[in-house]
Amino acid sequence: MEDKLTKFRKLLGEISDLQSTGAVLGWDQQTYMPSGGAEGRAMQLATISRLAHEKFISDEIGMILEDLEPEAEALDYESDEACLVRQVSREYKKQCKVPSSWVAEFSRVTTLAQQAWQKAKAESDFPQFKPHLEEIVKLRRQYAGFFAPFDNVYDPLLDDFEPGMKTAEVKGVFDELRPQQTELVRAIADCGTAVDNSMLYREYPIQKQWDFGVEVIKKLGFDFERGRQDKSAHPFTTSFGLGDVRITTHFDPNYIGRSLYGTVHEAGHAMYEQGIGVSLRRMPIAQGASLGIHESQSRMWENIIGHSHAFCIAFYPRLQEYFPENLGDTDLESFYRAINKVETSLIRILADEATYNLHIMLRFDIELALMEGSLEVAELPEAWNSKMEEYLGLTPPDDGQGVLQDVHWSGGMIGYFTTYALGNLIASMFWEKMKEDIPDIEGQIERAEFSEILGWLRRNIHCHGAKFKPMELIERVTGSSLVSEPYMLYLQTKFGEIYRL
Amino acid sequence: MEDKLTKFRKLLGEISDLQSTGAVLGWDQQTYMPSGGAEGRAMQLATISRLAHEKFISDEIGMILEDLEPEAEALDYESDEACLVRQVSREYKKQCKVPSSWVAEFSRVTTLAQQAWQKAKAESDFPQFKPHLEEIVKLRRQYAGFFAPFDNVYDPLLDDFEPGMKTAEVKGVFDELRPQQTELVRAIADCGTAVDNSMLYREYPIQKQWDFGVEVIKKLGFDFERGRQDKSAHPFTTSFGLGDVRITTHFDPNYIGRSLYGTVHEAGHAMYEQGIGVSLRRMPIAQGASLGIHESQSRMWENIIGHSHAFCIAFYPRLQEYFPENLGDTDLESFYRAINKVETSLIRILADEATYNLHIMLRFDIELALMEGSLEVAELPEAWNSKMEEYLGLTPPDDGQGVLQDVHWSGGMIGYFTTYALGNLIASMFWEKMKEDIPDIEGQIERAEFSEILGWLRRNIHCHGAKFKPMELIERVTGSSLVSEPYMLYLQTKFGEIYRL
Repeated sequence: MEDKLTKFRKLLGEISDLQSTGAVLGWDQQTYMPSGGAEGRAMQLATISRLAHEKFISDEIGMILEDLEPEAEALDYESDEACLVRQVSREYKKQCKVPSSWVAEFSRVTTLAQQAWQKAKAESDFPQFKPHLEEIVKLRRQYAGFFAPFDNVYDPLLDDFEPGMKTAEVKGVFDELRPQQTELVRAIADCGTAVDNSMLYREYPIQKQWDFGVEVIKKLGFDFERGRQDKSAHPFTTSFGLGDVRITTHFDPNYIGRSLYGTVHEAGHAMYEQGIGVSLRRMPIAQGASLGIHESQSRMWENIIGHSHAFCIAFYPRLQEYFPENLGDTDLESFYRAINKVETSLIRILADEATYNLHIMLRFDIELALMEGSLEVAELPEAWNSKMEEYLGLTPPDDGQGVLQDVHWSGGMIGYFTTYALGNLIASMFWEKMKEDIPDIEGQIERAEFSEILGWLRRNIHCHGAKFKPMELIERVTGSSLVSEPYMLYLQTKFGEIYRL
Repeated sequence: MEDKLTKFRKLLGEISDLQSTGAVLGWDQQTYMPSGGAEGRAMQLATISRLAHEKFISDEIGMILEDLEPEAEALDYESDEACLVRQVSREYKKQCKVPSSWVAEFSRVTTLAQQAWQKAKAESDFPQFKPHLEEIVKLRRQYAGFFAPFDNVYDPLLDDFEPGMKTAEVKGVFDELRPQQTELVRAIADCGTAVDNSMLYREYPIQKQWDFGVEVIKKLGFDFERGRQDKSAHPFTTSFGLGDVRITTHFDPNYIGRSLYGTVHEAGHAMYEQGIGVSLRRMPIAQGASLGIHESQSRMWENIIGHSHAFCIAFYPRLQEYFPENLGDTDLESFYRAINKVETSLIRILADEATYNLHIMLRFDIELALMEGSLEVAELPEAWNSKMEEYLGLTPPDDGQGVLQDVHWSGGMIGYFTTYALGNLIASMFWEKMKEDIPDIEGQIERAEFSEILGWLRRNIHCHGAKFKPMELIERVTGSSLVSEPYMLYLQTKFGEIYRL
């Protein structure tokens, strides 16, 4: 078995090199590449990802897996080797079910769809985008078909982002959450408590924003020896291996919240990647367990920790020193309330903690209906607007600020949005558990001491990489399946206090 | 034939994607990569370059070449297709002669040798490096053997950098040049004319150096839409394709010459790459014709143009505006003399125009003797020091400032140095021709007008990429084979004037 494992690891290591090389190409494209490089870069990326894919679905991998699978079953379930074989086998079988003709067609359709979406969004003209989305929905239904039989046609899509998770589970949790969360938002809107956040929208010089952000994430535990930060239009985290995990930040010179919480959010993703166990290095399980688990990390740091009162105690005085002209007249309590102002809005990426999941549940409902065939693409704007009214009490003035606002669908990503909301739920579940294990957690945050918190995350979550399926991991850490109570309780407590409900 | 050519181009395009991807990895490694990324990056680079090599020496390429070669001979000799088949066939046959066991051994030996060299240089201790260099010389003689029969054992090594060039040609030209160049240097040393360049060694803030350099190379014609500049410890130029050619600069806060002329030198390389004809895009001939031709471009811009009196007229007043506190008291004539100060020195990379080639000829003599077997590695320090005395009248105080100063040999690169001197000779040959074609060339430089000069270079040299062998290209442009007279005449005229010889 040793020989086969060595060969298996060698093949996977090469594929991993190709994938991380593709990540370098993507990072450069979004940070430093001059405009003239676009055409060449598209070809480089296409070649690299094609080679990685071909090598992964090769007969060579298939034959080794056939040999290794029965042997791996005899190993300790939690061992690196058993997990590696199990997870690769799962992914291999999935990818082999998808014909390369479908992959080529999907790539062709989504490339055109993304161009069409950009124009349609700019011109707020849904009909331009409609035929493209229709093709995408058709292709995605076809994709689901490759994995038949299934309980729900949405299951195979969700599985790409949350391995093993079922639509019914998500639906169950969302159905519980929805009425409570809409009620909370309504109560806040009706309570009459006004929160002023105008001081966040003053002129904040970018270099000082940068310096403060670096100071914060260094304290949190982002390792600059094994990572770096750059600027980009859309913030993202990317990993080139355990020793090189990079984040990017977008800076708004007239709003401090964007860069500060964007940086903390991405650092949350990056610390996850930096914390993966070194024994998993260069293996396909040297990554996050799922998008939802990844979001649980970024959102825990950004929201539960970053938007907490204790965090303000730790960092607000320092922020005032950076920007005395903007914040000298704002006391800590007012700042804490300002960063937690709740306001229903049309745009998901600008949404606050209390309303965010409603934006996601709206998209989940629509995706599900599209996939199940109970909603036609042509009916989408109307469905969007009526859900928007139902969940958030708002009606978009045009489709650019409505159904066309997000890039995801044009790229063929159906099932992705859901992971954002799952991330919030999972973060609260982990947080509950962590609070039990670290009774002094609030005091530690107040003193800007994060080593015990990061240590807990590393030990319980990060080090495992993708050894376990997300639900397995949640169960291991919390002893429970996915539930909405901790999240709802967290929101109710926090905003109940701020808005004196 | 069309079908075969299309397939040929497709295969070569993929290889080109892999190579340019490797270039991105290398660029990032030297500019932005955090230290923790080193181990992963080495593996990514190894995988990418191995895949590119395997794809190039594949039977598939071999079989298509067999079909295409006779058909390509019927095409116009200068057509893209004929040149492509000819050049790829040449390279393919070369690479197929080298057994992969040799490549692996060479890679192993040079990796260790580079580590050993770093330590040996730091400790100025040649014996530490000696066994490594002995292995390299042995491997390089073995390498030459794969290409037997040859006129000179050094020929196959030279051919890797200057396709088609013979040792005898280089030797002939160097033998002519050596006595004249040593005589010129001696005459300058003996003439008693003193040149003060102390104003170059004042405190020059790096951001201002950066801004001035950008202003200069924009005027020269470096296209920032299809390229960019970054900082690195060792300056270099790298191309990711015709639309993305990048340079790096090293800044010395206490010396303006380093960044200014480093930037112009690299921009010279980069404008060559940016000028390659678009019909060659993504083909292996979309690169410079050879290292010597490449150096002819960088050195023409850096030295012949950049160190000229006309260039000072164009840019010195602007430089004074950038640094009035450093240069306010230096007139143009004094500045022109300062940047052209001749001083024999031990270190090649610090050498001025008049002494530079002597450093190269010394290395050429030694490489040739090592390869021919008339010199043992053990005798190297002594040979180096006595040549140094003979050519430059200096004796290194230690081997760190002598035989250990350059990285090249530790990387197994024997034959590479020669191209630096060839670049100087070729630059002067091109320059002679250009002066005939552009009579007002000096006036144009004085007015900072470079479009006609760059246009001439693009038309006559750049657009061809590597369609022709370097000597073919020289012959096409100048109507002559490689000669030393234009270079020697250039040096004698310029320095005769400055030093009133």
